[in-house]
Amino acid sequence: MDIEQFRKADYQAIDRICDYYYSLQERSVISTVEPGYLRKHIPLSPPGEGEDFQVIADDYQKYIMPGLTHWQHPSFFAYFPTACTFEGILGDLYASSTANPGFNWSSSPACTELEAIVMDWAGDLLGLSSAFSNQAGVGGGVLQTTASDSALVVVVAARALYMRDHPDAKLEDLVMYTTTQTHSLGSKAALVLGLQVRSIEVKLDHGFALREDALRDALESDAKIGRKPFILIATVGSTSSGAIDNLADIRKVAEDYPSLWVHVDAAWAGVALSCPEYRCELYLDDINSFAHSFCTNFHKWGLVNFDCSALWVRDRKNLTNALDITPIFLRTKHGDAGTVIDYRNWHLGLGRRFRSLKLWFVLRGFGVAGFQQYIRQCIALNQKFANLVDASDELSLVTKPSLALTVFRIVPKLQEENQPSLSLDSLNDLNRVFFGRLSARHDIMLTQTSLNGIFCVRLAVGAARTNEGHIQEAYNIIIEEAKFAVQTWEQTVNGVATVG
Amino acid sequence: MDIEQFRKADYQAIDRICDYYYSLQERSVISTVEPGYLRKHIPLSPPGEGEDFQVIADDYQKYIMPGLTHWQHPSFFAYFPTACTFEGILGDLYASSTANPGFNWSSSPACTELEAIVMDWAGDLLGLSSAFSNQAGVGGGVLQTTASDSALVVVVAARALYMRDHPDAKLEDLVMYTTTQTHSLGSKAALVLGLQVRSIEVKLDHGFALREDALRDALESDAKIGRKPFILIATVGSTSSGAIDNLADIRKVAEDYPSLWVHVDAAWAGVALSCPEYRCELYLDDINSFAHSFCTNFHKWGLVNFDCSALWVRDRKNLTNALDITPIFLRTKHGDAGTVIDYRNWHLGLGRRFRSLKLWFVLRGFGVAGFQQYIRQCIALNQKFANLVDASDELSLVTKPSLALTVFRIVPKLQEENQPSLSLDSLNDLNRVFFGRLSARHDIMLTQTSLNGIFCVRLAVGAARTNEGHIQEAYNIIIEEAKFAVQTWEQTVNGVATVG
Repeated sequence: MDIEQFRKADYQAIDRICDYYYSLQERSVISTVEPGYLRKHIPLSPPGEGEDFQVIADDYQKYIMPGLTHWQHPSFFAYFPTACTFEGILGDLYASSTANPGFNWSSSPACTELEAIVMDWAGDLLGLSSAFSNQAGVGGGVLQTTASDSALVVVVAARALYMRDHPDAKLEDLVMYTTTQTHSLGSKAALVLGLQVRSIEVKLDHGFALREDALRDALESDAKIGRKPFILIATVGSTSSGAIDNLADIRKVAEDYPSLWVHVDAAWAGVALSCPEYRCELYLDDINSFAHSFCTNFHKWGLVNFDCSALWVRDRKNLTNALDITPIFLRTKHGDAGTVIDYRNWHLGLGRRFRSLKLWFVLRGFGVAGFQQYIRQCIALNQKFANLVDASDELSLVTKPSLALTVFRIVPKLQEENQPSLSLDSLNDLNRVFFGRLSARHDIMLTQTSLNGIFCVRLAVGAARTNEGHIQEAYNIIIEEAKFAVQTWEQTVNGVATVG
Repeated sequence: MDIEQFRKADYQAIDRICDYYYSLQERSVISTVEPGYLRKHIPLSPPGEGEDFQVIADDYQKYIMPGLTHWQHPSFFAYFPTACTFEGILGDLYASSTANPGFNWSSSPACTELEAIVMDWAGDLLGLSSAFSNQAGVGGGVLQTTASDSALVVVVAARALYMRDHPDAKLEDLVMYTTTQTHSLGSKAALVLGLQVRSIEVKLDHGFALREDALRDALESDAKIGRKPFILIATVGSTSSGAIDNLADIRKVAEDYPSLWVHVDAAWAGVALSCPEYRCELYLDDINSFAHSFCTNFHKWGLVNFDCSALWVRDRKNLTNALDITPIFLRTKHGDAGTVIDYRNWHLGLGRRFRSLKLWFVLRGFGVAGFQQYIRQCIALNQKFANLVDASDELSLVTKPSLALTVFRIVPKLQEENQPSLSLDSLNDLNRVFFGRLSARHDIMLTQTSLNGIFCVRLAVGAARTNEGHIQEAYNIIIEEAKFAVQTWEQTVNGVATVG
């Protein structure tokens, strides 16, 4: 493909992407294909000779598009959102067009310098203390691929720091702390690193937040048996219910355990720190005063296309001490002099994309005000949904709505006063039927979860095109399916009762 | 930015990318900025209000472009190439536009299905055995971010397998094997995982290839002291000199050590397997018959934009056994039934980009013939350069040219017969001066390395626009600098001699 063919193919791609966004609302959210659908349309081997790009582009529309779930659809409420903005797409496009890996400063100075600056911008947006800024030169921020990578990097750094301070400690005595609501990134890091993990139980009554007593108990009991807790992954905005660990409590405990690295995983909720009114609830002061590291994914709810996981550390030397390997073919004048950041020593891989470009485009394109407006709009829409749920006869909130996430289930009203209330098992059965019905639809997408044995449904707001109408429509669909599920279920139960 | 503003901004981006490629040859390869240049042009904080995209796009040209090293410049010969094709850019663009994370099948079926198919295409292109194909259902291929991630994943899988087969083994007795020429990904994996690594010495006489004796000696000596070698990272095309470990030898040894996982890291050279004439030299038969895993980066020398590290394993269960964590919010009907691949259990993170799209676009756009033609052209250009070096009075090859990589240095001709030949230290000093002069230029970019104490210069061919003229020009520049370096150096030496 020569330059003019590229111009033509790319203009067409742009037009088709525009058409996609104009027509997004009319599409099904969920793909209806069956496993194996694509092998029917694609040959077993690559073509011998190159094909015309028009054929390839048309095949994308014909065969790939039907197999896509539309995460940007205004009725997509599953998992957490994946950000996709036009500014983000443009950032990806420019970055892709020059293919600069930026693994050290001199491999492409702009990649490193923009990342250092824009991570400071992002820290500023979220109200992070200058202790985490690149400008100040002690802490710093770096873009990683995912929150799992960020967590893995931090656990490796914390382990290295612990072993340096406790040279006699044995690796098999080390233990990572998470809670029963921590994202699977905690147990995955433990699995990858071959480390023990202790998952501290958190309670529904506490909104699934880790509190002082539970943490202190764990630390004291582990001390007795010689286990060495070296890192706690605390969560601000858990995946299942948006739970927020009590960082003020954790801070108090951490003062007594200075060897415990506290990593704050705010992969989803962290971007809400951009709005000052949520900073208290999200424990910004505690993050600023004592957290060793903090992560939020701009590619989730932060308007930047995947991948853009932002990680800040209070002391960059903890990363580079743990990860620096500089063979001679990577040595450079500036790197040797220590006058520049060599980001390859801040993460697991070597090569890296020029990801700061899209973050820069998004932060400039939206400005602080535009970013805040988007976050506030998502929270307001979720509050509207939560209010509808709360006011309904069929549905009930399982936990307090958290920012842009609502977790709910069916709890049928008792028809007669003396009717015994339903067992957890029965309620779970009913809600599984309910979720099964919701999942069978193609006009909306939600996900399930389980909170200490309670089967629930999650609705997460985040697609940029979702408005009040989509929320009302989602509620209508959900209520319709809830009523149907209850009806079917009552018939079954009564039927069985009659037979009995 | 609304849809029409996006269309406009994107058309402009395309036009500017086209201009970039039209003007690439006239640019300096290397950026001339000094550390800290960008902070002078960019404010400390993000703007309060959103900015017009035209201003942002213009700032990209004004402030970012001057800080880029042009990896696609025809006179870029440093490191290894980073692939960038128009087909690859288009694949990135389409993928970015829908932002599908594809961490399990149902999150977007097309992402999983296309990756499974296209990895089979890629295996087919390289001549990999069907033991590695997704279609066959036992082995399989997956796209990772970098070869470092691929290696890390494989080491984790190998460790889990070893510990399952040897439940009494202690982690601290485990040892990874690399050679003194293995890429830093080996020692980085060891650092990350807290494992011992043994770096087996390889020799210049053997072209820096690992051979039977060295491997067997290491295994026998470790057995005596109770260490447990569980993985060998063998290299096909090392970074410093393109060395190729003797996989036929390794295979013989591995037959006696069935617990040793052999991973073949062919990050750079693996794509040359697309040309049948190199398959013997690159030990394809051995890879197919016994390697546990094989990795090559299409984003290096394989025409696909970063990131696109292709990893194949002979038994996919070794990955999923080591990495599968499925919390309830990620459970799906098809995943539970095991009828689909859930790629999140094949790598470290959870979220992932729709990377197979660009690989599909490239393989279709080029076809097998086009892909081969590009590889052969790079090898022929490198051969031309190596021949010039070999015929020159000043320069000398340090190792046999490997595919598209030449490693050379200055070895001045003795002016008088009885003049003593230069010591290694003197030669290294001279070559450092030589490389210093080359690095100070902006019209060409090469990198240095050291091979068992010999300081050398590397020239790697790979930019799609490099032609014979650029190779001749590179040689002219190199010879000019070599002559100047020798002259200066002789004057210094003679000057000192005269004074003495």
